Order: sequence, then structure tokens, then C-alpha cells
Amino acid sequence: MHFELLHQDKSSQARAGKLVTDHGEIETPIFMPVGTVGSVKGVHQQEIENEIKAQIILGNTYHLFLRPGTEVLEAAGGLHKFMNYNRPILTDSGGYQVYSMSGSRKITEEGVKFQSHVDGSYHFFTPERAIDIQRSIGADIIMAFDECTPYPCDYQYAKRSMKMTHRWLDRCFTQMNNTEPKYGYEQALFPIVQGSVYTDLRQESAKYIADTDSLGNAIGGLSVGEPAEELYAMTEVVTEILPKEKPRYLMGVGTPVNLLECVALGIDMFDCVMPTRNARHGMLFTSEGVINIKNKKWEKDFTPLDPNGTSSVDHFYTKAYLRHLLKTKESLGMQIASIHNLAFYLALMKEARARIVDGTFTEWKNKMVVKLDQRL
Amino acid sequence: MHFELLHQDKSSQARAGKLVTDHGEIETPIFMPVGTVGSVKGVHQQEIENEIKAQIILGNTYHLFLRPGTEVLEAAGGLHKFMNYNRPILTDSGGYQVYSMSGSRKITEEGVKFQSHVDGSYHFFTPERAIDIQRSIGADIIMAFDECTPYPCDYQYAKRSMKMTHRWLDRCFTQMNNTEPKYGYEQALFPIVQGSVYTDLRQESAKYIADTDSLGNAIGGLSVGEPAEELYAMTEVVTEILPKEKPRYLMGVGTPVNLLECVALGIDMFDCVMPTRNARHGMLFTSEGVINIKNKKWEKDFTPLDPNGTSSVDHFYTKAYLRHLLKTKESLGMQIASIHNLAFYLALMKEARARIVDGTFTEWKNKMVVKLDQRL
Repeated sequence: MHFELLHQDKSSQARAGKLVTDHGEIETPIFMPVGTVGSVKGVHQQEIENEIKAQIILGNTYHLFLRPGTEVLEAAGGLHKFMNYNRPILTDSGGYQVYSMSGSRKITEEGVKFQSHVDGSYHFFTPERAIDIQRSIGADIIMAFDECTPYPCDYQYAKRSMKMTHRWLDRCFTQMNNTEPKYGYEQALFPIVQGSVYTDLRQESAKYIADTDSLGNAIGGLSVGEPAEELYAMTEVVTEILPKEKPRYLMGVGTPVNLLECVALGIDMFDCVMPTRNARHGMLFTSEGVINIKNKKWEKDFTPLDPNGTSSVDHFYTKAYLRHLLKTKESLGMQIASIHNLAFYLALMKEARARIVDGTFTEWKNKMVVKLDQRL
Repeated sequence: MHFELLHQDKSSQARAGKLVTDHGEIETPIFMPVGTVGSVKGVHQQEIENEIKAQIILGNTYHLFLRPGTEVLEAAGGLHKFMNYNRPILTDSGGYQVYSMSGSRKITEEGVKFQSHVDGSYHFFTPERAIDIQRSIGADIIMAFDECTPYPCDYQYAKRSMKMTHRWLDRCFTQMNNTEPKYGYEQALFPIVQGSVYTDLRQESAKYIADTDSLGNAIGGLSVGEPAEELYAMTEVVTEILPKEKPRYLMGVGTPVNLLECVALGIDMFDCVMPTRNARHGMLFTSEGVINIKNKKWEKDFTPLDPNGTSSVDHFYTKAYLRHLLKTKESLGMQIASIHNLAFYLALMKEARARIVDGTFTEWKNKMVVKLDQRL
């Protein structure tokens, strides 16, 4: 796996690059659709490729560990073969899901004990175990096992947690070095910067992560409830320190505006459940702004879903029809809206990349962030 | 609209025909996927055409009347345009759904008062109203407003109900004659034979319906809980009387075995929620028998979903993957299983037709009805 930095925008930190993996190349900046439990909800694999034009998707270690479990995934030859998806896959470490279940988990230096949301059974994740499971899943990009602090988080807790995340990272690297890729292709570990919203902690963590000289680096613990200004400020603090020649992945971010602003700060990779989750509730992201398709105003709007859209659903279905499907809770509505939103996110990143390459990124971005937040 | 009877099987009453509508031709025998509220659940319109290879689908008047309502459907230019589906559509009359809601409906000679399952509002369907609504939906084939008697049903009730259904049919024809097609293409009314499981009533009703000299005829009030023997016996009684040169539609039937047996009795058209409803619960119909894909035995079966299947999902996804998706309640699981089952139903009818044409239908059917009921 290697990253090529192809263009550096002159009036921002935005970059265009190419991440080369054994499952193909990823043009950055890129958005990664979330395929929680081995499926991008409501979307066929062919649609991930042909309609959404995703180049990499994300799987959740916590969910895949519980179901179908590593035994089935190993028997299948890894997640790619299990779901018949042959492009790169990144897995989170399971940490985020585990922490989200406050009350049913316990964090110690050794790891995290938690209870399954499926059957209440108890499990214990350690940095070593998180690596082993991700090896079994067969992720091209394996994420370090970290603690994702909540927001707000007091300084002392954030500092102690960051230090533990760093110690856990060392254990992750040791485990990576002591184990082999499971399925004959490279699996790379990305470490994660923590430090909540404290500049000095973020700087300390970024330096620690930069020093690991990893194939790529991630920023975690953001998009957890903090104001957008904090998200941008922390991202900027960190990208100033992380090596330029490595891809930077901002975890769990965000709205289309968040994406563009963070591309401008030098982020290359994103993931977020927002495009699919909001799709299921009728919120559509478009190049002209946000549509709540359940609103009465779309009831008799028989124009295409999104005339500027890049996927076939944008032109095949109308706003009125999608509204009807979502109002009646028909599965097809969720399917159409998810394809639309994900295709929009991917197209937005594709255009950002083209703008970086042709030198018009900042001007375009400044116009877009106004339009994208409009309510239509 | 007209029907061409192309082949008559020599050793059974099975027939191959062609029903020509303004939205295209339908090769019979045919199965019609159910698109309750303007969508075949979980299936894109292109998949209805290219994967399932449906030639006609069914819409439910009751559901479409409540949502999106005739005002929206008329503004769209009818259901075909609303959902962007350009092949023939048949609508039921709303009667069946209304009667299913025992307790919240009241039947009189004038019509049926019922309460919406969506918002509790009261509505009144009459034969005239059922025709008007189906005109507005824009169905190619409009079904008469009838009373579907439950099973069991005492003789006197069945007889009184049948007589009323006949009077309602006269009102339906009058309303058809007093109104025009809404969207420039032909809309044909199919009357419905009732009479519960009583031979003399079925005969009387079949004669009444045959005398209307309609473009097609339907058999209702079956597949409501009676044993298969009763279903076949009543179907035989009726097909002996209904005109041979007109298509015969057996409403709400059934399993793959039911379909083949009733094709042998001279039925040309079927609809049923079974392939989609059972798909959502993990029951797959295949040419080798029935699969409960949620069973543990499929957990590590990485063979294609159905090697004999006619849709791309059969070859793209594995049994183990579909099992996982349905166990985790992922929407994609329901989508895959629905496409599989519907494609299987359509392929079964296509093969039945080919067997009728080449003279091997009965021999093939007798073998298939054994295989189709096996549990794999």
C-alpha cells in the first residue's frame, strides 16, 4: 500500500492524491460509505460500484465480530469474498461502537469489556484482539484500537485517555508485526490521533502518531457533538503536524459542508453514517441544498429526484414518488434515498478533487458551502 | 385488449396464450408480482423488468387510494407514470383489503364503509367508487368490486354474498360504460366468480360471469384458508364453465405447486404476496425445493444462492451471505430474497408455458410438484 500526493492546492491545504491498495486504487479526497454489518444498508454491491461509484467502503468490527463472526468470515475467505465486494475495505477497531454503549462496557488498561446488543453476551476487546479480528475480517486498512472520548470531556480525562490510546497503539503495532495478513493481500494499520478539543493534547497526539511513520493516519474523537468550529480547529491543529506524504482520515465526519471544509484543511478520507441514516428519514443532500422529501411541497413535484445527480435513481424516480415511498415506509424509498445521498457524497469528493487539480478549489468551495446548507 | 389462445395442452386443461394490452403483451400463464402501494417491496423498477422479468404487476386499490391518493395519482398521469413503470398494471378492487379488516368495516347493499389503517379516517367504497378509483390509478385491468367470503363460510351467507357480488358487478359495468379511460389507453374490467367452496354456487357464479362476455375473467374467494383440494376442485368447476377464449385469473394463489396445479386446470394469471412475504422471512422457493435460509446449515454454505436461478442475485450472492443479512435484519437480505423468489415464480411460469407449447407439460408438472414441496 502506498500513497501518492499528486496535487497540492495553493490557497488551502487541500490535496489530491491516490492511495494504492491490493484491491485497487482510491482517488483522494474520498468518502467511504459505511457497510456496518457487511452491507451498505439497502444498496446492492453492483450499485455501490456503478451507481454510488464508491472506491472503498467501511465495515464495523464490533458488528461483524458479533455477526456473522470471525469463524464464518474466515471460512468465507474474508469479508470481500463473503459479501462479494472486490474493492478496498477499511474497518474501524470496534472501539467507537463499544464506547457508545455506556453502561454496558468497562474500560481498563488491558482493554474493554462489553455486552453484545444482540444477545447480551459478554466480550472483551483488547488492542491485540481488535487487530486479530480485523485480520480475520480481511480489512485492507485496519484501524488502531483507541478510546474515543465523548464531548464534552474534561482535560484530565482526555489526557489520561490519550496516553492510554498511545499505549494501546504500541500494542496494536506489536500485534500487527506478530501476525500475518490472512488472505494474501496487504493489511495496513492506521493509528488514530485523540486529545478531545484540547490543542496541546491534539498536538502531542499528532506528534506521537506521526512518529509511527504509518502508511496512513487518522483523526478520531471528533464529530461527537462538538461545534463545527472546534471540529475545524482541531483538524487544522492536527493536519499541521501529520506528515504530508501520508493519507489523513477524519473519522465519522460529516455533512457535505464539513467534508469540504476539512478537505480544505488537508483531509483525504472520510466516513459517516449521515448520508444513509438521513436518507432513511427523507433528508436528501443535493448540489443546490438540503431537501426534506417528506415535506408536503414535494407531493406533486413530478420532476426528477435530482437533475444534477450522478446516479440513475436521480433521473429515473421523481420527488413525488420518493416522498410517497418514504411516507408509506416502503423499503424502496430508503433504497433510492441512500443511493442518491451516497452518490452525491462521492460526486462531491470527485468534484473537489477536480477543483484541486485545476486550481479552482477554494473559490468553488466557498460558493458550495453556502449552497449546500440551504433548505430547499 | 385481446387474448390469443395459442396452445392447448392435450393431457390437461393447461393453455399458453398471449394477452395484448396497450402497455405491451403478456405471455400466459403468468404470475403478477404484487406492488401494494406503488412499489414491489424492496425491488427497483429496473429489477422488476430485468431481473424478475415480470410482464405485469398488481397494485392494491385500497392502499393506493389511502396513499398517495387519487389526486396525486391523477396529477402524475396515473400509476404507470407515478412509479415510472411502463408495462401493464392490474389493480384489485379494494374489496379484499377492506374485508380483511373485520371489525372496522360494515357491508351493505350500497357498499362498504371502512376505517383507514393509516389514520383511522372513515371511507365508503361502492362498486361505482371502486371503478372510479381504478380509472384514476390508471390500471390496464380493473377488477370488479366483489365480496370475498371468508373460509369457512356457511352456504346461505355464501349464496347471499354471491348474489350481491353479481348485482355489484352489474353496477361496475354500468360505471365502466359511463366513464372513459383516464389516460388514453384501454382499461378493461374483469368480473370475479365467487361462491365459496360450494359447487352449485361456483357454477351459478361462473355462468353469470361468463355471460358478461368480458375481456377476461377472475376467480376470487379462494386461497383464504381452505384445503388445497377445495382450491383445485372449485377452480376446476369454474374453468369448465368460463369461456376458453378469454384469460382466467385466479386471485391470491399461491405456492409454486398451487400455480402448476392450477395451470393444469386452465388458469392463465396469478398473483400472490407469498413470494415477497416469505422472502422477507427467509423462505426461498427453488426448482429443487424450499430453503429456509435462516437455518444453521447454510451458515458456511458459500455456494451461489441458486445455481439454477434466472436472476443475477442467484449467482452474485451466496447462501451464507443471504442468511447473514436476514439474520441481522439488513434490508439488502429482503431485497435479494424478494428478487430471487419473484424471478423463480416468473421462470416457473415461463417453463410451464414452454412445456405446454412442446407438449410435455403434464409429465413435467407431475415431477415438479414433488420437487417443489421438498425441504432442502
